[in-house]
Parts: sequence; structure tokens; C-alpha cells
Amino acid sequence: MSAITLDGRELGRTIEKDLMSRIDDLKAKGVSPHLAVVIVGDDPASHVYVRNKEIACNRCGIISTRIDLDSTVSEQDILKVVERLNSDESVHGILVQSPLPPSIDESLIIDTISPLKDVDGFHKMNLGNLVQGDRSGLLPCTPAGIMKMLELSDYETSGKNALVIGRSRIVGMPISILLAQKGIDSTVTVAHSRTKNLADICLQADLIIAAIGRAEFVKSEWVKPGAMVIDVGINRVPDPTRKSGFRLTGDVDPEAAKNAGWISPVPGGVGPMTIAMLMSNTVLATEFLSR
Amino acid sequence: MSAITLDGRELGRTIEKDLMSRIDDLKAKGVSPHLAVVIVGDDPASHVYVRNKEIACNRCGIISTRIDLDSTVSEQDILKVVERLNSDESVHGILVQSPLPPSIDESLIIDTISPLKDVDGFHKMNLGNLVQGDRSGLLPCTPAGIMKMLELSDYETSGKNALVIGRSRIVGMPISILLAQKGIDSTVTVAHSRTKNLADICLQADLIIAAIGRAEFVKSEWVKPGAMVIDVGINRVPDPTRKSGFRLTGDVDPEAAKNAGWISPVPGGVGPMTIAMLMSNTVLATEFLSR
Repeated sequence: MSAITLDGRELGRTIEKDLMSRIDDLKAKGVSPHLAVVIVGDDPASHVYVRNKEIACNRCGIISTRIDLDSTVSEQDILKVVERLNSDESVHGILVQSPLPPSIDESLIIDTISPLKDVDGFHKMNLGNLVQGDRSGLLPCTPAGIMKMLELSDYETSGKNALVIGRSRIVGMPISILLAQKGIDSTVTVAHSRTKNLADICLQADLIIAAIGRAEFVKSEWVKPGAMVIDVGINRVPDPTRKSGFRLTGDVDPEAAKNAGWISPVPGGVGPMTIAMLMSNTVLATEFLSR
Repeated sequence: MSAITLDGRELGRTIEKDLMSRIDDLKAKGVSPHLAVVIVGDDPASHVYVRNKEIACNRCGIISTRIDLDSTVSEQDILKVVERLNSDESVHGILVQSPLPPSIDESLIIDTISPLKDVDGFHKMNLGNLVQGDRSGLLPCTPAGIMKMLELSDYETSGKNALVIGRSRIVGMPISILLAQKGIDSTVTVAHSRTKNLADICLQADLIIAAIGRAEFVKSEWVKPGAMVIDVGINRVPDPTRKSGFRLTGDVDPEAAKNAGWISPVPGGVGPMTIAMLMSNTVLATEFLSR
């Protein structure tokens, strides 16, 4: 038996198509959704991500503005850019691409973005909403994309044992809060680098979210037959057979597809869902700001 | 073998004593820590809680002001009181006693309190801090009290299987976020009313936090021998042998003391710790605001 592969590209396009009528309604009111992306320095992976976000905006009819800043830019100057975008009424979404140079306080930058324009969903106010049990606002894109993926796959979360491997503020913590909420109702375990007997814990999980950032960390034999496996990792591993010299792989051993019931692969799984949810957040922010 | 009982009253006094020198430093600078408590209506339990908070302020040398509002007060009028306290520079901590009458939007009231004066730690901003992994701000008092109780008992949390039963925004969610954080490093499971096989899950836990609000819900035989059991529940159950007609009991069957290694009892466990952390938050807020 082999797992059903969840096609993040196809599901992502479904979400984007569902946004079209809302975008048309906004445009009929004279409002064009507009995402501003700030990128600092020339990290190649960051530039690929930002480019993919611009392409998605294009596809959806969302205006995108890109602000390129030199890697030597001061924290003060980034804050000025964010404040200018906060007060620019033609801009509805602001995203500062991570990572920032080590001299910059990333939390300070994120928390300076207006919470109403924080389409990444990383602002304290938006994360705090989650803890209060409110899912109606701007949710972090990757966790929101995972929830949408489960929903569109008709996966019943209630009463399931969900295991989240990884405790980042971007993926692990918010997805574990979401899964435990009323109406989602999973029993949620958060595991991490200090967890003991992870293999045993994993074998009890109906739903595994792997977001620890280690290549093929979750072994095939840790996966309970029939489990739903969502692989969030994107790791570069050396591969001399490739022209680039590397290949992309997730946090889950690809052999797990033999045990799992469903699997969200890398690439082509959570990545496109994250971008679709960024589009969704930009439309939501525009609707709210133009009320 | 019988469990070691954690004495919340004694531990709470230790915390309060440790605050004395910080309060003295503030007073030497001409600043007197000042907590304002808003109470709406005449719920007897709420009045007992507020009275206990006033007594603690007295004990610590913190000024307390109590604002009694009639149960028929409008949301608008409560908001006005909060805004007046926000702008009153002589007030450093503001607490609106829960529950509020059903017609009042409690979240709106809480999120109107200045996050810098939110000594209950329930404001979105302060809950969002937690998700970002920051424990330096105003933490919700009961979760902070549990963490302090574990710390003062020299309980090693790293690598332990912690089970949180209950998912409230006041206790369950914030304590599960805290326990999973770097430096605390427990593997955390959040269970709730929709969890299946809770007895089995419970038997695997080294640390049990019972905060589901059901009298003696956690059975003695669910507790692994030697486990640390923190009982957060305060439930009134009928007891004709008492003059009052009821007795207070926790969320854990008292028989569990036979299996557990340590137990935080009800009453006399988490309750006094919560009040001590409220005093601690008030001092922290005063220090921050008078910088």
C-alpha cells in the first residue's frame, strides 16, 4: 500500500481561484489589493521565495511592490521603511522576508508592522489572537496552509492524536495551538530536539507535522500505518548527480510514503499552500482596511 | 508511598518576600506600586478572589484600589474606566476580574487594557510574546505560578512528558506553550474534552497539569507512580456535612496522592501561587513604567 500524495500545487491553485471573486469585489469598489515585500541582502534562497510570492501576486491580480535593501542597511532604516508602508493607504499587506542580517532585531521589525497589514501573521497581536482561540484574523501562512490542506482533503481532525515535531514561532507553536482549538479538537503533542523516545511517540500519532528543519529526520518505521504525514521541512542536501550539486528534501524519509495513508511531499506540498495563504491574508487585510 | 505535597502558601510567601527589596527600591525612587482591580456585579466567588488579592497587596506594601461597578454597567462605561486607569500615571497594574456579565465582550475589555499594565497577562500582546518564546514580560499568573512552583521544587522539566488537561486561554494554552519552550524543554501534550483514551495518555505523563474544571476528573489509577501532579481546578461540590453545604475540590481525585511523587493540592496549591505572581507582575510593570 502506498500513501495518497497531497498535491499542494493543485490545492493552492484552488485557494487562489476562490479568492478571485473577492478580489473582483474589491476592484469594483476601486480598491486594488497591494502587497509590499521588503527584502534585505542577497541570500539566494530568500530571493527565490520572494520571486515566487511576486509570481503568485501576478497570477491573482494582486499588486506587488518589492523593496530591496542592501545587507548593510541599519535597523533604523528598515524601521523607517516599515513605518512608511504602515502609513501608505495604498498598501494593504507588508512582509519582511526572513532571515534578516544578524545585527537586526527581527522581532522588533515584525512587531513594528501594523498588525492589520501583517500578512505573514507573525506580529505579537496576531499570535496572541491564536492563544485566545480566535482564527478569524491574519494567521501565520504555513500553519494556515496546513489547516487548509487538511480541510480540503476532508481529513477529520477531531479526537486524533496529532504530533508536531518542532517548536518554532513560525510553524511548530502556531500549528500546535491551532490543532488543539475548539472545532479542530486534536489531542496535540509538541516534540523537539530535547524529546526522548520520539520514535515511540511518533508511532502513536494519527497526524504528524514534521517541522524540525533536519533532512529526513522522521524515519519510515516511526510512521503508524495509515497516518497523515505533513512534511514542512525544506533542506538542501548535497547531490553530485545534480547540476546544482544539491537536492531539496523534507524532514521526513521519503520511504515513509510506504506506511503513511496520506503524505504532503517536499517540494510541492506545504510550500505552495503557504504562498496561497499569503495571497488569502493579503485579500483579508485589504477587505478589512477598506471597510 | 505517599506524594510530597507542594505547599503553595509557603512557596507564594517566598516569592512575595523576594519582591520586598524591589518594592523598597521603587519606593526609594518615590514610586509606590499600585494595582487597580475592577469588579463588576456581586458574584460571591469573584468577591472572595478580589479580597484575597487586596490582602496580598497589603502584605506586600502594594497600593490597591478597587473599583466596584454595578452588574448593569454598560460595556462602554467599563471601557471608559479602563481608559482612565490606562492614562493614570499613579496606576501600574490593571486587572478586570473575570467573569463579566454575558452582555460584555470580555476580550474587548482585556485588549483595551494597556499591555504594559496588563498584570493578568491576558492581553493579545502578552500572549503573543509567549508564542514568540519570550518569557520576560507579563505572563498569565496561573501558568507563571505553576512554572515557579516547579522551579522552586527543583523539578527538572527537560525531556519530561508533560500532559496539560484543558485548553483555556487562561491556563491550558499558555502553560503548554511555556512548558515546550527552549530552556524548559518538556515534550508537551494538550488534552481536552474531545481527547480519546485519556487514561492511557495520562499514564505516560511524568508531569500532569489538570486544568479542565471538572471535579476529581483525573482518576488515581491514571497517574503514573512518581509523577508530578499539579491540580489547577477549583470546583464546588455539594457536601451536607459542611455548614456551607459545599466543599472545594480540584480536578484530581485526592486518592492520586497515593501514586504521585509530588502533588499540588486544592486548596493551598496553585491558588496562592497565582496571587503571588500577580504581585510579581505588578512590581515588574511598575519597574518598567518608572524606568
